[in-house]
Amino acid sequence: MPVRVGPVHQHLVQVYYEDTDHSGVVYHANYLKFFERAREHIFGPRALRELFEQEGLGFVVVKADLAFKAGARFGDTLRIETRIRLESPYRAIFDQTAVHAEDGRVMVEGEIQLACVDRTPRLVRLPSSVTERIAAA
Amino acid sequence: MPVRVGPVHQHLVQVYYEDTDHSGVVYHANYLKFFERAREHIFGPRALRELFEQEGLGFVVVKADLAFKAGARFGDTLRIETRIRLESPYRAIFDQTAVHAEDGRVMVEGEIQLACVDRTPRLVRLPSSVTERIAAA
Amino acid sequence: MPVRVGPVHQHLVQVYYEDTDHSGVVYHANYLKFFERAREHIFGPRALRELFEQEGLGFVVVKADLAFKAGARFGDTLRIETRIRLESPYRAIFDQTAVHAEDGRVMVEGEIQLACVDRTPRLVRLPSSVTERIAAA
Amino acid sequence: MPVRVGPVHQHLVQVYYEDTDHSGVVYHANYLKFFERAREHIFGPRALRELFEQEGLGFVVVKADLAFKAGARFGDTLRIETRIRLESPYRAIFDQTAVHAEDGRVMVEGEIQLACVDRTPRLVRLPSSVTERIAAA
Repeated sequence: MPVRVGPVHQHLVQVYYEDTDHSGVVYHANYLKFFERAREHIFGPRALRELFEQEGLGFVVVKADLAFKAGARFGDTLRIETRIRLESPYRAIFDQTAVHAEDGRVMVEGEIQLACVDRTPRLVRLPSSVTERIAAA
Repeated sequence: MPVRVGPVHQHLVQVYYEDTDHSGVVYHANYLKFFERAREHIFGPRALRELFEQEGLGFVVVKADLAFKAGARFGDTLRIETRIRLESPYRAIFDQTAVHAEDGRVMVEGEIQLACVDRTPRLVRLPSSVTERIAAA
Repeated sequence: MPVRVGPVHQHLVQVYYEDTDHSGVVYHANYLKFFERAREHIFGPRALRELFEQEGLGFVVVKADLAFKAGARFGDTLRIETRIRLESPYRAIFDQTAVHAEDGRVMVEGEIQLACVDRTPRLVRLPSSVTERIAAA
Repeated sequence: MPVRVGPVHQHLVQVYYEDTDHSGVVYHANYLKFFERAREHIFGPRALRELFEQEGLGFVVVKADLAFKAGARFGDTLRIETRIRLESPYRAIFDQTAVHAEDGRVMVEGEIQLACVDRTPRLVRLPSSVTERIAAA
């Protein structure tokens, strides 16, 4: 349920037991999950499923750079802020930040690069439905 | 964001890439996560955190019986329906069902028994804030 | 790397950060993962992959009953003990226990029922390679 | 079960159902889990637990850069190769690669930066037990 605010897409994530580890904060790998959820809501999970089932096209993460600033805890709500840019006809870059929804602290910053592959799997151009969605952002 | 409809609590879960496995449907263990998210929203994640941090009380799953009827896929939305009953002053039973939000099919049925422990961890009575919440349901 | 000891298959699982939650012990849903890893090693992950890719057959969990006795912590090693019985030509039951490898405490007991489906997915008889493996156990 | 070969630590990871997603390959975030498992085996999970429980010291990932080259599938075995260097008295860098154990293909390359925090949590110098372990590598 992303809310468009200017060129930034926003998606809320609730931190549950499952997301934390015994150190008391969110396990670091889970921010990649949170970021992916936010990306999926930008394009729509159903649209992505149809792209996969009908055209055999799927997105793959080819690069992910993450900087961890602070640890979110159980019960926190995070706001995932996403900006998108086209790196080339084959690659989209998502600048994503996990912000503490209540106090605005930046928890994690990420730059995630995605490409599109067919069933082979071979790299293909990003589908026009996707590039148009990005251009409109 | 649970919605109360009669005595049944409802919570929506979106099925993401992270939830599926290579067979194409949701990995079976993840329904336990979905059920826990729904339970946490009934009491409120922040209230549960305060209970843990201020009183040292936490919930533990002591028993979980699951029946898998159908497999949810990426892009599906599931509605988790929860009914609660007190088994004893020490144990609450959550009857939980994952229903396909669009077509109403029952995907997974579960009976989850929870107890409350202190930091020891030793079994303690369910806190009154919890039993009152259940009685009011 | 399962070791056969009499009719019981044994598989060791190391508890990592990723397995725990902020309460300090293993997140309850993860025992279903540990049990599945043990089951996969009984038949062999590569054999299961070939069954899936070449014959279109896969296993699905149809029922899972879990009793949680004690919580494993980061740094623990668990021994998953598995006994198998054929319920019918269509269903195999795995009695699985997670035991603390060092002190022998039973942490979690589970009864997991599996069936076999084709690509449809429709229920099919358990493949003979599987029933023979179980009979030999 | 890490094997030391020259300055490179090696750790084997089996790819299970739980690790894959509906695209058929390992879900991208899980490589961060695989890398952490390998790191924990270098120092020893029990030693890390004692460091945490007795001295209140824990490691946190402060930066993670990942490049995804190929997708591992269910049934694959991955060899995680790790090299460590001290960036400063406060920061250790782990160069980690997930290699297909059978055919030697590089699947994922990562550079993971770790720091050490006390219970506050405040950044502290890396413990001497850790820096000595790294120097000996």
